[in-house]
Order: sequence, then structure tokens, then C-alpha cells
Amino acid sequence: MYKLKIISIGKTKEKWLDEAVQEYLKRLKPYVQIETLWAKDNHQLIDWCQKENSFICLDPQGTLHTSESFSQFLIRKWEKEGSRLTLVIGGAEGLPQILKEKSQLISLSPLTFTHQMTRLILIEQIYRAIEIHRGSNYHKA
Amino acid sequence: MYKLKIISIGKTKEKWLDEAVQEYLKRLKPYVQIETLWAKDNHQLIDWCQKENSFICLDPQGTLHTSESFSQFLIRKWEKEGSRLTLVIGGAEGLPQILKEKSQLISLSPLTFTHQMTRLILIEQIYRAIEIHRGSNYHKA
Repeated sequence: MYKLKIISIGKTKEKWLDEAVQEYLKRLKPYVQIETLWAKDNHQLIDWCQKENSFICLDPQGTLHTSESFSQFLIRKWEKEGSRLTLVIGGAEGLPQILKEKSQLISLSPLTFTHQMTRLILIEQIYRAIEIHRGSNYHKA
Repeated sequence: MYKLKIISIGKTKEKWLDEAVQEYLKRLKPYVQIETLWAKDNHQLIDWCQKENSFICLDPQGTLHTSESFSQFLIRKWEKEGSRLTLVIGGAEGLPQILKEKSQLISLSPLTFTHQMTRLILIEQIYRAIEIHRGSNYHKA
């Protein structure tokens, strides 16, 4: 069982977004144990990240992936890090510089998304990554 | 007032997705008159597209944009095409080849999204594009 911690800022405000994220968390349950931590501000975000052995940040300047290469990237990371992984999403103003400097950066798109929508896109891609790895029919590229 | 037609396949099944899309359509109402057409199959999709003077297709092989360049792209297109624009999203199996050959291709990300989620990401980017053009505070890159 892989473990994944997602650290971000601010609770999910929109009901539809919360429903969507819950739906994918439910689907991921048999394969990945996911913990979500919503910091109240950048100070707490930095504090929490510094307690992690390693973490990966989502940033527009990060490496772009296809869904296939993102799947390989995640699985390899899990294997390297003893099945544990931490992903960090910045707030509306982006990530604190100190976190960017200390971590590997990945990007979901050159487009800017709301940080709330980033959660949904990320969680769907994690589900897709698992399904690609499992060889299921979910992903038809 | 700009006009935008979004042509895609299949009705929105998920309630949360429909709510999200409706929210952005409401926000766009003062600036863009949006018409959404959901075809029942590829045959109808091709048929509808062929009635358009021109259309732009979303495809993973298309040109990637930042939100700023997507905003410029949209506004220029509207100005060139007499304030009318048609965007086409393929179904779960992607776009029919005949439509790809006849149109300009743009991409939201190298990642593969569900075609349903593509609608939401697209509509949020259209709203963002308008806000960038208006110089509002919505977009802080």
C-alpha cells in the first residue's frame, strides 16, 4: 500500500470541489492511503514541509509530464522513498521560495489554475497514474 | 459581447462537474455569450463542426499556452472572427481525425484529462482569459 500526503493551504471552499476530491479519494482507497493537510497560512505550510524527509512541489516552473510519465515518476518515487510520498500545493500567491529551493518541482500545465482546482486535477492524475500502472481501461490516451 | 460555442460529446454526468461549469458560465455572462452543444456521438460532432465557418480543437498534440498567452490567443481570435468562436472537445477516445486535420489544435496540458474535466478546466481558463484581458485581480500569476 502506497502512502501519500498532500499538503496545501486553505480548506476547500466550493462544495462541488470537495465532492469531486472525495470521489477520487474513495476510488484510490484500495491502492493509496492518502492524508490531506490544509495549512492555515504559509508559515504553517513551511513548518509542516520541514518536518518531512522529502517532498515534491507543484509549481508552474516545474517539469511537465504526460499522464504516462507522471505515472512512472510517481511509482519510481514511491519505490525509492519506501512507499511514502509528500506533495505540496502552494496557495493563491504560489509557493514560498524556501520550499521551491528545497524540493523537486513538477507542473500540471503551463496554464495557471486556482490552487483549489489544482487539488482536483492532481488527485485525478494520481488516480490515473495508478490505473496506468495497473493496466486498467481507465486511461485510453 | 463575445460569442463562444463549445461543442463536445455526451452530457455532463457528474453533478459536481455540472455545478462547477454552471458557476463559471454565470460569471462569464456579462462578457461572453456561451452556447454549449453536447453531441450524442462522433457522427453528430463532425456534422455540427462542418457547419461552422471555423473551429479550434482541444487536443493533447496541440499548442500549449500559459494563461496569459491563452488570453491573447482568444481575444485575437475573437477580433479576427467577428467576435464569434467555436471550441471543440473530443470524447473519451479523443477527436476524430477529420476534425484535427481541418482545424487549429490547442492543448490545456500534456496530461490526459477526462473529457468531462476538460470542460471545467477550459471554462475556468476562458473566465481567467477574460479577467486577464480586463486587468482584474482574479489572475495573479
